[in-house]
Amino acid sequence: MELDRILNHPGARVIPETESGIVVSSRVRVARNLRAFSFPGWLDVDGRVDVWQTLLGAIQEIPACSERVICPMSELTEMEKHLLFERHLISREMMARGEGCGVIVCPEDGFSLMINEEDHIRLQVLDAGLNLQSALKQADALDDAIEAQAEYAFSSKWGYLTSCPTNVGTGLRASVMLHLPALVLMQEMRPIINGLSKIGIAVRGLWGENTEAAGHMFQVSNQVTLGDSEEGIISQNEQIVQELVQHEENARIRLLEEKNVLLQDHLGRAGGILEKAHLLSSKEALNLLSALRLGIELKLITHLRRSVIDELLLLTQPAHLQKMFASDMKPDERDQARAELVKKRITQQTGD
Amino acid sequence: MELDRILNHPGARVIPETESGIVVSSRVRVARNLRAFSFPGWLDVDGRVDVWQTLLGAIQEIPACSERVICPMSELTEMEKHLLFERHLISREMMARGEGCGVIVCPEDGFSLMINEEDHIRLQVLDAGLNLQSALKQADALDDAIEAQAEYAFSSKWGYLTSCPTNVGTGLRASVMLHLPALVLMQEMRPIINGLSKIGIAVRGLWGENTEAAGHMFQVSNQVTLGDSEEGIISQNEQIVQELVQHEENARIRLLEEKNVLLQDHLGRAGGILEKAHLLSSKEALNLLSALRLGIELKLITHLRRSVIDELLLLTQPAHLQKMFASDMKPDERDQARAELVKKRITQQTGD
Repeated sequence: MELDRILNHPGARVIPETESGIVVSSRVRVARNLRAFSFPGWLDVDGRVDVWQTLLGAIQEIPACSERVICPMSELTEMEKHLLFERHLISREMMARGEGCGVIVCPEDGFSLMINEEDHIRLQVLDAGLNLQSALKQADALDDAIEAQAEYAFSSKWGYLTSCPTNVGTGLRASVMLHLPALVLMQEMRPIINGLSKIGIAVRGLWGENTEAAGHMFQVSNQVTLGDSEEGIISQNEQIVQELVQHEENARIRLLEEKNVLLQDHLGRAGGILEKAHLLSSKEALNLLSALRLGIELKLITHLRRSVIDELLLLTQPAHLQKMFASDMKPDERDQARAELVKKRITQQTGD
Repeated sequence: MELDRILNHPGARVIPETESGIVVSSRVRVARNLRAFSFPGWLDVDGRVDVWQTLLGAIQEIPACSERVICPMSELTEMEKHLLFERHLISREMMARGEGCGVIVCPEDGFSLMINEEDHIRLQVLDAGLNLQSALKQADALDDAIEAQAEYAFSSKWGYLTSCPTNVGTGLRASVMLHLPALVLMQEMRPIINGLSKIGIAVRGLWGENTEAAGHMFQVSNQVTLGDSEEGIISQNEQIVQELVQHEENARIRLLEEKNVLLQDHLGRAGGILEKAHLLSSKEALNLLSALRLGIELKLITHLRRSVIDELLLLTQPAHLQKMFASDMKPDERDQARAELVKKRITQQTGD
């Protein structure tokens, strides 16, 4: 199956074990629409298929897109859709779409184009660590290449036009996924989130809007796309991320110095449960693996590598788990398979 | 300290490892009052001291009470009162009393006399396992011996008179402590408790009235003291206990057969947390140790002896822990000491 080319690829460069893992990944997303068509929400099926065909044709001409995997929603199983969602390649909204909608992924190059979601094009570049600048460069180049093939809806006054006014202008959203367990343990995330929202920065959970921060993972992104340059948006975002990293590092030092027992308890329990549980929900797995990840970064857990945890954070998600065991499982069977998988991986490591 | 004689004694015969541990202990309690005095609630300090002195004098004449330890409330520290409470030798109400109130314990013989709680005398016999008959025999003999020294408040119509009408008549309460983890895991305790309450049987938690069943421990006792003979009360209670034991055994078989993964998960998590946690509240310790106790009885945990768990169930209580570490600890220091104690004891066993 072509989808395997996407799944077998880590999706983003793996962060070397020697580097800090606080910044998990950077993502740049650009919203674009074609001048010749209504926004997707106003199109009927034929119209959406037209857009889809037009864009497939345009992309065919772009050398950077030669290694593409085409995933039309109408041809995917529910599990395949969930797999793409868990890889952050399609949105929850896209999962409900049919003909004329889909995603085109270039897994080896870390970018994808979601077609006919809220806008005709949602171009996304994903990279590990804090790499917004290079992601923006790559997105810009791709954007130019597409624009050379198809005319965009653009206003000299407003900039790029989008279905939702919050994306008008640059159409750019820069978001960074951060692992902030120490700030959560020190109960300092709430005021930070409130403060950032006042300056137009959204902090969301692992799975986007209105999701809680399972696994202590937070997505930090700009809310405003209008009135600032692409570089301005990116540099503000990078600056905020660097401040959050600093806060998290401070919180880690304070945890070690002032709340050592609480920290050891948190790490010990996580390890104890992951090694001994026989049922593990996806959310609990995320939270406990997050604790081990913190322990590894603090060098309090030395028998495990962070890359093993990062892989498990992905593989323990429902669709990935389902695919791995290649059978149709009920939720409690998944919980059992998840517990077995985690136990095996982390105790294998223990024996290293 | 004389109190150590009480604490160093297990309090009840230890159940042999080969016997079922579902019935933890049996307790017979008799309420009596002296004809010559008002009930304790109507006495002033001088009156209570009179009762206390009268009873101390009476007991001095009884050979079975020769090995007594006298614990006047006014001479005990808060920690000592809590220790006696955790041993089920005084009630929470008694802890608040002062001069003229206290408990006289004969630890080697498993009985005690609480003086000037709700009644002048609360005679209690405690034994391991299901031994209500022998406990009643022992209580009767002691009761007769005391009555030979001091005249009781007795009505030929009502029987023994007590401060609270619910104790009038025989003044007898027979209660049995049961460990019913399988019924809790199978979610079958609630209807059982409701059913028993309709036939005048109270089911309470580890620490008596209005306490939840921490550690899956339940106290089953008669509500009615009037209108039935002592033997009738005891035999009804024993019959109900035997039925509950049967229910628990059935639930254990069904857990093993139908909910094996849930059971293994429950046991695994308990072991994982107890071995790895650095902070453990008294309630969490009770619940997790209860899981290990079940695992041992089901022979799913073979590296631990039940007696180790039973000892920990007692030693992890706040006052016992405080005494063991012989220092004034804050709650979080206790939680840390508790986690260390449990870890040490259960991993020592693992290494056996």
